[in-house]
Amino acid sequence: MQLKKLTQPKSIAVVGVSDKHGFGKSAAEGTLNSKIRDHVYFVHPRRTEFEGKKCYPTITDLPEVVDCVVLCTPAKTIAGLLREAGEKGIGAAIVYASGFSEEGTLEGRQLEQELKEIAHQYDIAVLGPNGMGFINNVDKINMWGCHTYWDLDDPAHGIAIIAQSGFVSAQILNTDFFTISYAVSSGNGNICTLEDFLSLMIDDEEVSVIALYLEGVRNPKSFLASLERAAKIHKPIVILKSGKSERGAAAAASHTGSMAGSSKAFDSIFEKYGVIVAESFEEFMCLSQALCVLRGNFPKHNSYGVISFSGGESTVSADVAEAMGANLAELSDETKKNIQKFIPAFATAKNPLDATTALFRDEPRTIGLLKAFNDDPAVAGITVGANIERKKDETNYELCLAMAKAVREGIVTKPVFAIPSLEDYRHRASRRVLEDAGIPMMSSMETAFRCLRKIAEFGEYQYTLKSFADCVPKNHSSDETAYALSEFDSKNELIQYGIPVPAQAVVRSKEELQTALSGMKYPVVLKINSNEILHKTEAGGVKLNIQNITEAAAAYEEILSNVKKKLPNAATDGILVQEMVPSGVEMIIGITNDKQFGPMLLVGLGGIYVEIFKDVSLYPIPVNRQEAGTMLEKLRAYPLLAGYRGSSLCDLEALKNLMVKISDYAAEHKDEIKEMDLNPVFVYPKGQGVCAVDALIVKYQKEKEKNDD
Amino acid sequence: MQLKKLTQPKSIAVVGVSDKHGFGKSAAEGTLNSKIRDHVYFVHPRRTEFEGKKCYPTITDLPEVVDCVVLCTPAKTIAGLLREAGEKGIGAAIVYASGFSEEGTLEGRQLEQELKEIAHQYDIAVLGPNGMGFINNVDKINMWGCHTYWDLDDPAHGIAIIAQSGFVSAQILNTDFFTISYAVSSGNGNICTLEDFLSLMIDDEEVSVIALYLEGVRNPKSFLASLERAAKIHKPIVILKSGKSERGAAAAASHTGSMAGSSKAFDSIFEKYGVIVAESFEEFMCLSQALCVLRGNFPKHNSYGVISFSGGESTVSADVAEAMGANLAELSDETKKNIQKFIPAFATAKNPLDATTALFRDEPRTIGLLKAFNDDPAVAGITVGANIERKKDETNYELCLAMAKAVREGIVTKPVFAIPSLEDYRHRASRRVLEDAGIPMMSSMETAFRCLRKIAEFGEYQYTLKSFADCVPKNHSSDETAYALSEFDSKNELIQYGIPVPAQAVVRSKEELQTALSGMKYPVVLKINSNEILHKTEAGGVKLNIQNITEAAAAYEEILSNVKKKLPNAATDGILVQEMVPSGVEMIIGITNDKQFGPMLLVGLGGIYVEIFKDVSLYPIPVNRQEAGTMLEKLRAYPLLAGYRGSSLCDLEALKNLMVKISDYAAEHKDEIKEMDLNPVFVYPKGQGVCAVDALIVKYQKEKEKNDD
Repeated sequence: MQLKKLTQPKSIAVVGVSDKHGFGKSAAEGTLNSKIRDHVYFVHPRRTEFEGKKCYPTITDLPEVVDCVVLCTPAKTIAGLLREAGEKGIGAAIVYASGFSEEGTLEGRQLEQELKEIAHQYDIAVLGPNGMGFINNVDKINMWGCHTYWDLDDPAHGIAIIAQSGFVSAQILNTDFFTISYAVSSGNGNICTLEDFLSLMIDDEEVSVIALYLEGVRNPKSFLASLERAAKIHKPIVILKSGKSERGAAAAASHTGSMAGSSKAFDSIFEKYGVIVAESFEEFMCLSQALCVLRGNFPKHNSYGVISFSGGESTVSADVAEAMGANLAELSDETKKNIQKFIPAFATAKNPLDATTALFRDEPRTIGLLKAFNDDPAVAGITVGANIERKKDETNYELCLAMAKAVREGIVTKPVFAIPSLEDYRHRASRRVLEDAGIPMMSSMETAFRCLRKIAEFGEYQYTLKSFADCVPKNHSSDETAYALSEFDSKNELIQYGIPVPAQAVVRSKEELQTALSGMKYPVVLKINSNEILHKTEAGGVKLNIQNITEAAAAYEEILSNVKKKLPNAATDGILVQEMVPSGVEMIIGITNDKQFGPMLLVGLGGIYVEIFKDVSLYPIPVNRQEAGTMLEKLRAYPLLAGYRGSSLCDLEALKNLMVKISDYAAEHKDEIKEMDLNPVFVYPKGQGVCAVDALIVKYQKEKEKNDD
Repeated sequence: MQLKKLTQPKSIAVVGVSDKHGFGKSAAEGTLNSKIRDHVYFVHPRRTEFEGKKCYPTITDLPEVVDCVVLCTPAKTIAGLLREAGEKGIGAAIVYASGFSEEGTLEGRQLEQELKEIAHQYDIAVLGPNGMGFINNVDKINMWGCHTYWDLDDPAHGIAIIAQSGFVSAQILNTDFFTISYAVSSGNGNICTLEDFLSLMIDDEEVSVIALYLEGVRNPKSFLASLERAAKIHKPIVILKSGKSERGAAAAASHTGSMAGSSKAFDSIFEKYGVIVAESFEEFMCLSQALCVLRGNFPKHNSYGVISFSGGESTVSADVAEAMGANLAELSDETKKNIQKFIPAFATAKNPLDATTALFRDEPRTIGLLKAFNDDPAVAGITVGANIERKKDETNYELCLAMAKAVREGIVTKPVFAIPSLEDYRHRASRRVLEDAGIPMMSSMETAFRCLRKIAEFGEYQYTLKSFADCVPKNHSSDETAYALSEFDSKNELIQYGIPVPAQAVVRSKEELQTALSGMKYPVVLKINSNEILHKTEAGGVKLNIQNITEAAAAYEEILSNVKKKLPNAATDGILVQEMVPSGVEMIIGITNDKQFGPMLLVGLGGIYVEIFKDVSLYPIPVNRQEAGTMLEKLRAYPLLAGYRGSSLCDLEALKNLMVKISDYAAEHKDEIKEMDLNPVFVYPKGQGVCAVDALIVKYQKEKEKNDD
């Protein structure tokens, strides 16, 4: 695929130019306003010129084999035009029209399939259909399908926006301060996929932040590989993943035909790969712009010094920061003494600081105060209550100048953020003073502090503490059968991975029973061994707390006779004998296999914690010990494991080892496992280990499986 | 106090007019720009005129006894000027200066006390010190201490803003679209209190919404009485209560010297009184303005129809609405059919709706679509993705016109809200078109949907379902002693209120033991009766599970001998004999006595639910059955009471009765109770009641108490 011809064309032809408001007008104007305007051609069957430039009647008639055609015509014309472009030898195309697979109709799907086949046949990189096009602000090429605040003289700034929604990209471009290097509206994304562009942008040195509006993923392997590459070089990816709610998922499906996927799976992937997750358009915007403006100077931890110029603002800042999860740094006494030098005697040096209006229009004191915060090791970043409004205000403008000077001259080295109280459009020049110096102008306070927490989490993210491996499973067709291993077989698989289970044996005679018991400790339990009997207790197939061989022999007889009576047709395979183990803290540990992303480890405390409080952690495989620890710490019920009010500490090390082993097992069997459920796992006091008391493994493809392990 | 002279003065004198930026300049300009400008006088010791008006050297020299003096001079001059005003017979004063009690110094407190005494002596209503003044936009009187977008021709609109922060009021007035009738910056609020203004505004017909920025309450009784009056007439009060976090509380203390109080107590009061709680400045702003613009047409329940003009926006709307707790209405099939008439064939009629751009600039279809949503009984309000930006956009402007027309002409009767995706300043005329028709222009999406949930909760609020009574306790001095009642005495108090406890008796001899046991069911428990022994078990003072008289007699001896040996000096009073009751679901029910607001009922499930999950409900006394039910439903562990997965339902009715009785007890003893703890209360299966197994009551003022009940 000739993706470069799409993203860095040397020449362009716009097909379907028009004077009327729409794609044909916007694209024609945009390309004319590009650096390569001398290599822009227009195609129209009846027009002779557009804005003084000649129009050619067809693509075939073009005097040059352009790199890219921009098709502004309706859905039904696209296949023909694309074929014509292919015949001409053109390597890239942009298609704005809707009316394809996103409509959910057979006709729409067929029309899109046809485009895909033509693209394949002629090796054309096709962006769209149902998208807004492409902007390359580095090489100054505008192929956008609607009006934007496009300025040829504006330098590129580093954000690549990739969006599965034309509206989202258009809205954000419209703000007129969002500083992009590239914008991609990927549309239906079936030919050139969103993943293709993601991969490209991660490796592009002109891109410092990727802002990704995502409805669903088409190519999970490529997607994860890109995320990992970004994580490794610590290039921020801000994702607004829509379709998290049930209704949102339905909306996404009818928008770009994307499957929204499991939002919990996505969230856990984003956590592992250090992706910054936005929950709204405004957060998406604020995070992307702030990360770009910071130019790599991210806070090293989530701990801020908060400066306001009013008591009310300072008080509310503290409340909002706490509610949004941004921490306020504990200032040292030295810092407080230092701060006091720059504020009036009646003001108190603390965090958050009400610096009062005494600092207004006083550059040396403003800079001195910033430096006082900067020099405290507990402070990872500084926020300033800068209420820049739409109109220029000298006091605020001078505040911006002072902040900018402090950073520009290296007096303040930690990241500084300007935070307003209320929504507004910010006076452009004031904003630019800040942003040019590397100081983000944040959204209003609530969004700002939430973003600060997320930015700090990204600053703290360490790629080397995570484990990565390709665990994307092969596709399982929907009619593929799955089968459950018996408890005995399930546990045998666990044993091979060094997972502690109660001693067990399957016996098919009283002699075998006696042999098995000679190696076990009493009490034991006997259960019918059958993967056709789901409810063993109801079938009279379980006997607990057996203390000696005599009781065991009687139980053996009784179970067989009970089951024969109650379920005469069920296939059985002897009796499962197991040691009874002492009870511990009950955990549930499982594997779910996400259709797109493969095995996910799930952990939670048993019983009501999972059932009522839904208190579980989910994380993509592979899970290392560090990640297992984080999963446990995230449980609300974690104090029940880690100890509280003098209760004894559980064997967390053994529990983490078990989780890692389950992860290893799942990674090696990613194509076969459908699900896995260890319930309960008993966790004993520190140093006394864990035990998987019951286990169930469900696999795909019985025949192949049976000879696998 | 002559509050009307402050809020509706017929004449004003500004003392300390100035050409320099500051109070003296702003106040002089503001008053000159008031309707009563002909009755505005200026005072300055050296100036002869200001803006062409004569300046008088002193207050005494004024040719008229004005209603109100506006003092723009520093702290140390205020007492003298106030006394001079008093001597002249002036009834009201505004003081901007800071440097009083808010500084936390003895000098500052004394200075403020002096003002208070002068105010009292001469009966002067004093607003401030340390505030921004007062605006009466109904009678067009501006006595504000800093610049605002003040327009004599602007009509009053209904919001009264009362703020314990000059900054907060100034910021909000600066937005230039916030539609106020009055603005009060209450400053330190020790003379005229915030509560005085709250009371005034609730009864003012020119006020439709009260926007209250609150750091702390000075007069809880007046505060609650005002909240109740507002609740009764369903006049919305929007509160931004700051100082919720620990650091926020500290900041509030040094700002206006307010004690922030317990945020949980405040939240529960606001819930009971139907106060709408904002969590940020932006929410405060958006809620106040929206409630004002709605003019009483509040949504009747929390269920919205959501219209967007883009797939991306529609998808994210659904996610954000769900995350923010605003529900999307389930549309009927009829509504869907109806909607389909107004959208293109390729679009799908659902909620949220992507109406596509086909409706742009099409008034009849826009109105038709709004009506289709309006006519579904499941829809309580309609949101429209209206991305009004700072510049006029014809498409959006026409959308506003169409929406306004639909509402103005009564085609759409349910509340309609305009919701943009991103922060911006909204094109003023577009906003006005909407607001004039009663359509609020909301803040960006996330804040908007959170506000929609809160507005719906206010719409649903029913005063008649709540119980009210004056439960504010008398002041307890900090050195007042408290004492614990013994378990026996505590339970005897409960018995008097009809609260079930296990049968109990205190016996002081074996004979008494025998008599007591003759009326009890075995098994019983014996405990040492002493309010000096806190850890009875450790002292060998408890014997459980006693099955007959012989065991009881032995236990009696053993307990006395154990305690004598281990705690020879502890005063004891016989032995407590109690029936052992079967165990049930363990609850903790308690009373805490908030210093300002009095008794609060607390309920939670026992053990880890309270200790680890902090899963408790708190609510102000009195609590009726309905309120008790809501408290229980709010517990995360509620399914453990109400039944889940076939578990049996607890006796919720008996539990609610118990809660109401505890509430009755606490209400009657509000001045005496310090705290009360029923732990555990056993709740039995439906129809089988409850039992308070252990109880502890702590009271103030031992001597008085002893003869009380």
